Amino acid sequence: MRIGILGGGQLARMMALAGTPLGLRFRFFDTHADAPAGHVGELHVGAFDDHDAIDRFCNGCDVITYEFENIPAHVVERIERSHNVCPGSHPLRIGQDRINEKNFFKSCGVDTHDFLAVHDRASFDAAIREIGLPAVIKTTRMGYDGKGQGVARTAAEADALWNALGASPLIVEKFVKFDRELSAIAVRASSGDIRFYDWTHNTHHNGILRISRAGATPADPAAATTARESIATAMARMNYVGVMAVELFEVNGRLLFNESAPRVHNSSHWTMDGARCGQFENHCRAVAGLALGDVAREHDCAMVNLISRLPSIDSIATIQGARVHFYGKSERAGRKVGHINIVRHIDMSYSDFEQSLARATKLAEDTNT
Amino acid sequence: MRIGILGGGQLARMMALAGTPLGLRFRFFDTHADAPAGHVGELHVGAFDDHDAIDRFCNGCDVITYEFENIPAHVVERIERSHNVCPGSHPLRIGQDRINEKNFFKSCGVDTHDFLAVHDRASFDAAIREIGLPAVIKTTRMGYDGKGQGVARTAAEADALWNALGASPLIVEKFVKFDRELSAIAVRASSGDIRFYDWTHNTHHNGILRISRAGATPADPAAATTARESIATAMARMNYVGVMAVELFEVNGRLLFNESAPRVHNSSHWTMDGARCGQFENHCRAVAGLALGDVAREHDCAMVNLISRLPSIDSIATIQGARVHFYGKSERAGRKVGHINIVRHIDMSYSDFEQSLARATKLAEDTNT
Repeated sequence: MRIGILGGGQLARMMALAGTPLGLRFRFFDTHADAPAGHVGELHVGAFDDHDAIDRFCNGCDVITYEFENIPAHVVERIERSHNVCPGSHPLRIGQDRINEKNFFKSCGVDTHDFLAVHDRASFDAAIREIGLPAVIKTTRMGYDGKGQGVARTAAEADALWNALGASPLIVEKFVKFDRELSAIAVRASSGDIRFYDWTHNTHHNGILRISRAGATPADPAAATTARESIATAMARMNYVGVMAVELFEVNGRLLFNESAPRVHNSSHWTMDGARCGQFENHCRAVAGLALGDVAREHDCAMVNLISRLPSIDSIATIQGARVHFYGKSERAGRKVGHINIVRHIDMSYSDFEQSLARATKLAEDTNT
Repeated sequence: MRIGILGGGQLARMMALAGTPLGLRFRFFDTHADAPAGHVGELHVGAFDDHDAIDRFCNGCDVITYEFENIPAHVVERIERSHNVCPGSHPLRIGQDRINEKNFFKSCGVDTHDFLAVHDRASFDAAIREIGLPAVIKTTRMGYDGKGQGVARTAAEADALWNALGASPLIVEKFVKFDRELSAIAVRASSGDIRFYDWTHNTHHNGILRISRAGATPADPAAATTARESIATAMARMNYVGVMAVELFEVNGRLLFNESAPRVHNSSHWTMDGARCGQFENHCRAVAGLALGDVAREHDCAMVNLISRLPSIDSIATIQGARVHFYGKSERAGRKVGHINIVRHIDMSYSDFEQSLARATKLAEDTNT
């Protein structure tokens, strides 16, 4: 069976590395000839609006999936006329607009904080009045890694953000001083089987994910159960097949929806070494119509993103429990170029684990320049 | 860094899957256009005696390694004039002749049983007389998976084996009724750092490895220490860089040399899921000049070879602790097409583990037709 992946970045690359041992074959479509997934499979280079290139790419693929959510939904809809696409255009359309996305997840039972849609200066001013300051202002589309958004604490800041972002439709949200950001990562098989990885606790630096720790325990177990049930409902309603990530803010026990991603997700890279079957393998299993693998966490595990530059393999080798994941990308400021997973091995104490995590974080900081 | 691998079979494929996350690139040379490593890297197809094809393959590779020991040594010697080859032609030359191989390992301190070289009928008859029956008769070159060898229990059987194999140089060995076959798997870095994986206990079926269980305890600890020290000596003397496997027969506590392989080895596939850093990643680390990974066994683990045909992924998914490794090869009688690793997870009892292993073995038997 051949899986076609729209996008040839590190997520596609790690899908192929995880899916190849299942006997699956991979083909990638990317706009860049140096897309790093091309190291481990057949890379088609073209523009997403080049129908012929897309058709050549799809021809011979048994199923199509994608590694990023900013593919034009109409491209995926067109492919769906002739091919099975997982998770399909429906989740993409929902997720590509923050208002749609919030309304949809809210309707499935996921808790949200207050938000309002804004389409002109008058509705912006009204939203700021109603939501109050400080407020978070985001474009409804195409934002990632902290881009296309900002926090307004004063009327002047709100005005500046309007000037910067107001050409696009916006969402104004109540600014919430959250206790933690948690990720829920689920995988749904075509059979309807849904499994959740352990809760993950994420910490960011300059708007980019820095560390994800597996096995966070939400403060309110009932809220955690509701969140998972609501996410499962959302996946079932979308007839979702594959891995989905939902980021939630924990605020006094409440788990408030932040955003979803219809794909494998950076905050779950720990599953590659800490879970029995990682997110990349499980995504492949799901889209290939196979039985899911065991999502149980086998080890305490944390992930540290490597941004801008890579430390040497030999420097990482001195850190107990460290596993290397480099993406084969050229180094560039602000670019995710790899990650390190720290696994707490059977002979490592909790403090050994924390020490390894601190050392990996230090390496990551030293090379993020 | 680009690693060129001579051979594009499952071992090369698994090297690439393990080495890609280190940021390494892979290119393969194989005589077959459908070599399964070609799914995960650049495949060059040609004959090993086609100098131009070999040169094109080597051009742009930073280091060359190989996945099988039956490459003509002169091919590797020629490459060595212009490229770094790990583990190089020296181990290949030693290993390609069973007499050389035994003499070499014996000289390093590895225990052996009696053997004699045979080059004509007279020396064959003399060897049978001196060694006595039953005796094992093998061609000195090009044997694998039980091919090119046999056991003579009677003079008539010896005669038949002479007729079948006598056109080649032979080795006549004392037939040893061994208690167990164990593998020692070591990896040596270019720095001289040598690490051993846990002892592995192998069981065969029709001359082909069926099951390898990690963590066998040799009956005589002193013999085990001597064996490892002697193998380390052998690796150092050959200036060996990479993974090497040595199969030993355990006979009343003695560990008698059977054969070596200058490469990653089927009996160590358990390390992919049971050790902290598997043999494929460590081989890549060694040949790339990187620090070795941790060889410690993290889990009880056993491997079951899948021969001839593959069971379904979904049938394997019902086995607790099972990890799938399919090779992307077409199915054919007697061909190794995949393996299953059974990992004893933290919540699995020893009997759960044995049950999973029994179920995987049953699946393997049912499809080996």
